[in-house]
This record gives sequence, C-alpha cells and structure tokens, in this order.
Amino acid sequence: MKRTTVAQIFADQAAFGGQTVTVCGWARTIRDMKTFGFLELNDGSCFRNLQVVFADNEVENFKEIAKCNVGTSFVVTGTVVLTPEAKQPLELKAQTITVEGPSTPDYPLQKKRHSVEYLRTIQHLRPRTNLFSAVFRVRSVAAHAIHCFFQDRGFVYVHTPLITASDCEGAGEMFQVTTLDLANPPKNEDGSVDYSQDFFGKRANLTVSGQLNAENFAMAFGNVYTFGPTFRAENSNTQRHAAEFWMIEPEMAFADLNDYMDTAEDMIKYIIRTVMEKCPDEMNFFSSFVDKGLKERLEHVASSDFVRVTYTDAVEILKKNNDKFDYKVEWGCDLQTEHERYLTEVVFQKPVFVTDYPKDIKAFYMRLNDDGKTVAAADCLVPGIGELIGGSQREERLELLENRIRELGMNPEDYWWYLDLRRYGSCKHAGYGLGFERMVMYLTGVNNIRDVELHPRTVGNAEF
Amino acid sequence: MKRTTVAQIFADQAAFGGQTVTVCGWARTIRDMKTFGFLELNDGSCFRNLQVVFADNEVENFKEIAKCNVGTSFVVTGTVVLTPEAKQPLELKAQTITVEGPSTPDYPLQKKRHSVEYLRTIQHLRPRTNLFSAVFRVRSVAAHAIHCFFQDRGFVYVHTPLITASDCEGAGEMFQVTTLDLANPPKNEDGSVDYSQDFFGKRANLTVSGQLNAENFAMAFGNVYTFGPTFRAENSNTQRHAAEFWMIEPEMAFADLNDYMDTAEDMIKYIIRTVMEKCPDEMNFFSSFVDKGLKERLEHVASSDFVRVTYTDAVEILKKNNDKFDYKVEWGCDLQTEHERYLTEVVFQKPVFVTDYPKDIKAFYMRLNDDGKTVAAADCLVPGIGELIGGSQREERLELLENRIRELGMNPEDYWWYLDLRRYGSCKHAGYGLGFERMVMYLTGVNNIRDVELHPRTVGNAEF
Repeated sequence: MKRTTVAQIFADQAAFGGQTVTVCGWARTIRDMKTFGFLELNDGSCFRNLQVVFADNEVENFKEIAKCNVGTSFVVTGTVVLTPEAKQPLELKAQTITVEGPSTPDYPLQKKRHSVEYLRTIQHLRPRTNLFSAVFRVRSVAAHAIHCFFQDRGFVYVHTPLITASDCEGAGEMFQVTTLDLANPPKNEDGSVDYSQDFFGKRANLTVSGQLNAENFAMAFGNVYTFGPTFRAENSNTQRHAAEFWMIEPEMAFADLNDYMDTAEDMIKYIIRTVMEKCPDEMNFFSSFVDKGLKERLEHVASSDFVRVTYTDAVEILKKNNDKFDYKVEWGCDLQTEHERYLTEVVFQKPVFVTDYPKDIKAFYMRLNDDGKTVAAADCLVPGIGELIGGSQREERLELLENRIRELGMNPEDYWWYLDLRRYGSCKHAGYGLGFERMVMYLTGVNNIRDVELHPRTVGNAEF
Repeated sequence: MKRTTVAQIFADQAAFGGQTVTVCGWARTIRDMKTFGFLELNDGSCFRNLQVVFADNEVENFKEIAKCNVGTSFVVTGTVVLTPEAKQPLELKAQTITVEGPSTPDYPLQKKRHSVEYLRTIQHLRPRTNLFSAVFRVRSVAAHAIHCFFQDRGFVYVHTPLITASDCEGAGEMFQVTTLDLANPPKNEDGSVDYSQDFFGKRANLTVSGQLNAENFAMAFGNVYTFGPTFRAENSNTQRHAAEFWMIEPEMAFADLNDYMDTAEDMIKYIIRTVMEKCPDEMNFFSSFVDKGLKERLEHVASSDFVRVTYTDAVEILKKNNDKFDYKVEWGCDLQTEHERYLTEVVFQKPVFVTDYPKDIKAFYMRLNDDGKTVAAADCLVPGIGELIGGSQREERLELLENRIRELGMNPEDYWWYLDLRRYGSCKHAGYGLGFERMVMYLTGVNNIRDVELHPRTVGNAEF
C-alpha cells in the first residue's frame, strides 16, 4: 500500500486533482446523509482535515462506515476532486473504505469544545484535538528552526550532561538522583547518608543549567549551543513553571554583550518567521481562537529593531510611574513582571533588552563592569510575556571571578575546571538562555506551560 | 571588531586571498624562527588550523608573541596569502597580534600525544585536541542530520518526559528522582517510605525509553520521533554502556515492519552521507589515526542494500558454524554480539536486519506473528559493531496486548493510557530506537562511549 498524506495532497493540489490515492487517518466527524456520507479525516500530517465523500452506490460497506464512531481509524482509497467553488479546495471521492481500528461511543473526544483542564487528564489523546495538534506541531517546527539557525551559523550542538555531582547553583531546588534504597540507606558513623555507596560514588542531582559545561566547549569550538532538558524542584504551582523543561543555551567565544544581543534578536526573528511560514494554518487558528492579534504582534516583533536600554535608565523611567505598580521601583531592586511588561508594552511597544544590572541581583559568573557595581548582563523582554531570554557576558578574568566566588561564600576549588578556562587561553565570551516552553507559549498564545509540554511534570504530577 | 572564522577563509579561499581579516583563536603551536615566527591557530570553526606568519619587522610585539605558551588565545589581524605550492593552501601574514588570554608553561595540552585515559581527566580541555574536536563536531553534525532527515519527511519532533512515575520497564535499572531527605525520609506506619510527601506525590524515576509516550503522539500525528536523553542505572563498567545517553525513537502510524526497516535504512545512509560531506577533514583524520578503513566501510554501508533475514534462517546459518562461537546457537536463544558480527561481517558482509524473533526474548509490546511464537521485531546489525538499531511493529490488537501484559505478570491497569490507543482508532504501527552514542562511535571508529560523550556519566563517575 502506497500511503499519501493529506499534507502532500494540499501542498500540490493541481497535481493530485483527478488522481487516485490511498490515505490513512482518524475520523474527526462522520455524517450519514442517507445516500452518501461525509468523513472528516485527519492523518496528523497537517492541521487540515481531508473531506471524504462516500456514496451508498459506490462504497460497498456504506452502512458500516456511516455507523462508525468518531475516532475510528480508516484506510480510504479514492479520487481527489478539486472543488474551487467550495469552502474547502478539494475532497476525496471514496472508492473503498476500510476500518483499520474501530472507536467506541464513549470516545473521550466527541465533537464539542473540551476544557484544557479536562484535556490534561487525557494527555495521550489530546494531540488529536485542533488545539494540541497545532501546539505540538509548532513546538516541533520551532525546535527544528532553532537547530537550523545555529547550525547554519557554524555553532556546534553540545549535549551537556543532565546528571551532575556539582552543587554549583542552588542545590535546594534540585532533584536528587539515586540508586540507594530510601527505606534503608547506608549510613556513615555520624549518621549521615553514605553516598560513596550511591551509583556515582557521591551525591548527584539533575542539572538546572548546562551553561558552565557549555563554556568548556565554547573555549574550543568558539560557538556552541545546548538544547536539552533541565529541571527545577521548585514547589511553585504557577502557569509558567514546570519541574522539567527544555532550554537552549548558546555560548560564544570572542563575543561581548552586544554580540549576544545581536544573536538573540536574530534568533527570535528567525524562529517567528520560520513558524509563520511553515505553520500558516496553525498560526491562523491561534490568532483566531486562542489569542486575538497574536499574528500581528509576532509580525511586529519580527520586523522591529529591539530597543536596548540600561537598567539604570529603565529604573529612571519606571520610578516616574511608580504609582502604577504594586512593587515600587528603585535602583538595586529586581524588576518584576509588571515592570518588565510596562517597559516593553507601554514605554517602548516592542522588544527591549535591559542591560547592565546591579551585580547583587545577578549570578556570580557575569562580567563586572568598570563601574564596579553593575554587570554586563541583559534580559530580553517581549510584549505579552515579559522576560523571554536572560544572558550575559561572562567574567573571563581569573582573579575577579575567584574573588566573586569567595565573596558569595562559595569554594573556588569546587569550580576548578571552570576557573581553568580562565587560566589557559581565556577570552571574552558571552551566552544566554532561552526557555523553550516559554518561547512556544509566546508563539502560540497558550498561557499555561502544562499545555505546551507533551506530558508536563509539576508538583504532585507525573502522570503518563 | 568584525571576526572572520577560519572555516570561512578555507571555504572561500579565492575570495579571501589578499584580503585583510581578523581571526580569533587558540595557539596549537608557536615557533620562533628568530626573524619571523609561525603560529598554528585553531578557532574551533573547523578541524583545520590557520598558519599565521609573523615577522619581527612587521609585528611590533614580536618578542612577546614568540614567547607565548601553547594554549594562549590571540586576536590576529593580517592578510590572507594564497600558497598553492605549499602544504597548506594559504596562510595569514600578520599585521597585528594581540594576546587575548595567556596560557602557562604547565598547560595540560602540550604538543604531544596524550592517552584518551589522561584526556578523560581533563574533559573541560579535551575538545581542544584534534581527536575530540573531530568527535564532537561529527556528533553535532550527525545530530542535526537526524533532525533534518525526519523533519524533511514530515515527522513531528516530540519531547517525551524524562521523569516518569510508571515502573513500566524494569524499575531495577532506573534512577530514582526525589526531593525527600535521604537521611530522614518520611515513613508510613508500616515503615515504608511515604512517597505521598515526595515532589510528585509518588515514587518517580528517570525514563529508560520514550517509546510508549511517543506512541501517544504517533496516533495523532502519524509520524513522530523523539531525540533526547535516557538513563540506565546498570552497574556495568563496559566500553559501550553509560548511565546517561541520547536516543532517537521514531514511531510511525499505518506502518509495518518493512516500513520501519525502509526508514531506518534510509536514515543510516543519510547520516553517513551527511557526515561524509560536511566533515571531510574529520573523517580523513578518523580513517587515518583512529580506525583504518573506516571511510571505506561507511561508504560501503551507504551504498549497500541491507539484507533482511529471519531469525529462524539466521539461526540455521549460525548453527552450522557453532564451532566458532563461545555461546552455541539454537532456536530460542538471544543472539550474542559474536553471532551478530558473524552474520553481518562474515556471512553477508553488509548490514543485516534480522527479523521475527521468538516472542519470549522480546518486549511485551511487539506484535505477535501468525505463527504464535515469533514477533514482528527486527534488529539492524552492522559490520564492526553488531546491533545498531532495535525495533518492531507494535501490537495494535487490544486483546492480544492485554493478554501478553498479564502473561508477563504485569497489571493492565498500569497501562491504561497505552491500552486506550488500542481502544480508540487503533492502527498498525511500528517504530525503532537508535542509541545516538553508538551511532557516533560507528561514524568515528572511537570504541569507548566515554570518548563520544561530552562529560560521560558511568558507575562511580559524574565529574564536571
């Protein structure tokens, strides 16, 4: 059996007109009009359904087909008929229809609107709905766009490890990975757990970032990027946090803060343009039914020059509007989502990089500016969402980095290999992190991270 | 500063000849010839070094540069001079050279051969060697080739979850993921650990395969693939096993065993051809210094029709040669690496799919053949390595699948969502798994998985 996909037929309608093809898919609706019937078939190759027309006098098992339940899978052989006057540009006139797998009257996805909350309880079936079909296709297309963007520019894709034995960044929010028996773990004489008997011979966790490892490879390949899962054991039940999510972390040698911002801006525009071009039906769907005006907003972002403003200047602007905020702004404070959105949505009305934050609210590895109080960091804020990307130039000067590590009460010996990069051919370098789910939410208008992950993992929830 | 990469110069030599450019990179060697010097500069953009010539009467800090240690990073501005008669096709005649970051006399990568064992102790620096530069670039190119292969064919990339609460496949070899305090875990009245207080409200592990989840999405999108990390807590210290590795798991609806084999064969050939084309210098290096004859072997594979032989016929062939094997073959036994390599290297001398294995040595989800004793599984064996891919047609018949689950002492209720796929529009489908590190070993000739992973995780080892 040579199978033709619905995507192929729609992509090349003129060539398929009049041709006999075999398509396989699942019935979204079946209508029995006595002497003929309609079958809306979706095969997952594209957002659109194929309308199959089957006539009593042509399809010998007409009655069997007309009685089938929604969700049934079919193999249909028929002729593609172009219908330029009709709502859909073509339909399939069936010659034979075979039931591949029946469905039942209690199929959970009957033809009606279901709440996203209900659909989260049937995550194995929800990709068969319009919404999730569109979300997960956009997710796939965006992921590939990211790979193409970096590969075309000579970046090397690096798979940084997920299991880590270094407690570098806040072990409190990390998941522990173990093969010890929790009911009866081996103990040292002092009563503490004897991790020398654990799988890795020491305590191990799931990583929260591949950045430090990625820097190892940037110092050899120049430009690298990670694209893999990361984990946070944060006990926060919000629409924007999941325990498991994917991150993109590019790292560039011989690059400064401006190089990071240039690359990140190009990347965002590239992702938007690629998804717009490859998923027009999906984007129309989102813009009509999920988030009105989404397409216009994204098109605006893709064609805007992003603003760059220092934290200090941004704070001056925000302070003048402190009456509008729950949290009042002053120099030294971390910006809240309300401030970020005000900057990008009201003040500048396009994406904004806020640069040069106070060192005390940023990570130890960010490069100290000459003023001694700010670091070469930049967050990218976008309308409708706030922070999309965080990044910085990295501290490449050994002494300053060691000082900063000590200042924060950490032990430089724990960072011996990270410091080695500053001992042997150190160089100016910069990088950033993009949370992939946040990007997918931005592209689709979907406002809950649980609805852009295939099987989301959150507090109290690891079903499927 | 506009930075030009060494890759760009070598890719477009004629255009760059006579041009002034600025390149940034690390010194592999520095030679002081009194009135002039040679600097072999590698910037990671390609395998090759750029030879920089600097003359005492042209570069004002000649003495400083000539004294620099190997590993120093430089910014060099100079003129590209084409040298068609020389060993290397071009060199850079320096006008200015700036030390970006110095190195030291004890830089661990002096110009000499280092053992791979030693280099594993400096994993943060080893990508600066020829071997690991080549390995990790091929790894990146192969990863992207896999994405392109599937995306071009309309497969949807799905990110199946890594944290799982289902014990489906041999929890004994899984890592446990927890936020409980191992020194003092909460207990139930009967003394067992109270997992209701753990992060996910139940016991959770790291996945060993995304296949079952991928099937959920194949039943909506038709064709999908995963490409992500998987984990095995196997306490085995071999050259081919790591605790963390990446897998590709495509899953295809309305597809049978032959469709899987066709796709897998096309995929392997595509990966080989892409890497050969995009990494010629790296492949020449491997073929000369790592595994003599590698390129010829890969070219042979890329241009061969893979053999397909049933397990039953393969056993007949092997039994006739039982005197050659440590483990004697008879129908029903699992094939060992010695048997697999004998089939692919001696008997057929090309890649072989062995099909239709006894059901008792294969997984519960594989489709039962009409003979009642074999399943529609196929392993792909390749010369030099043995098994590269395992896959099967999946059991799409509800009753047979439920029976098999019970037969193996498992509980169908634990598989409610997996069984739902057989209740609602079930269809013939097939899929396979490719261990990505094994593929990289196959492409490079490197024979230890620790040398194709960036920072390998194995028993007793989670450094970096």
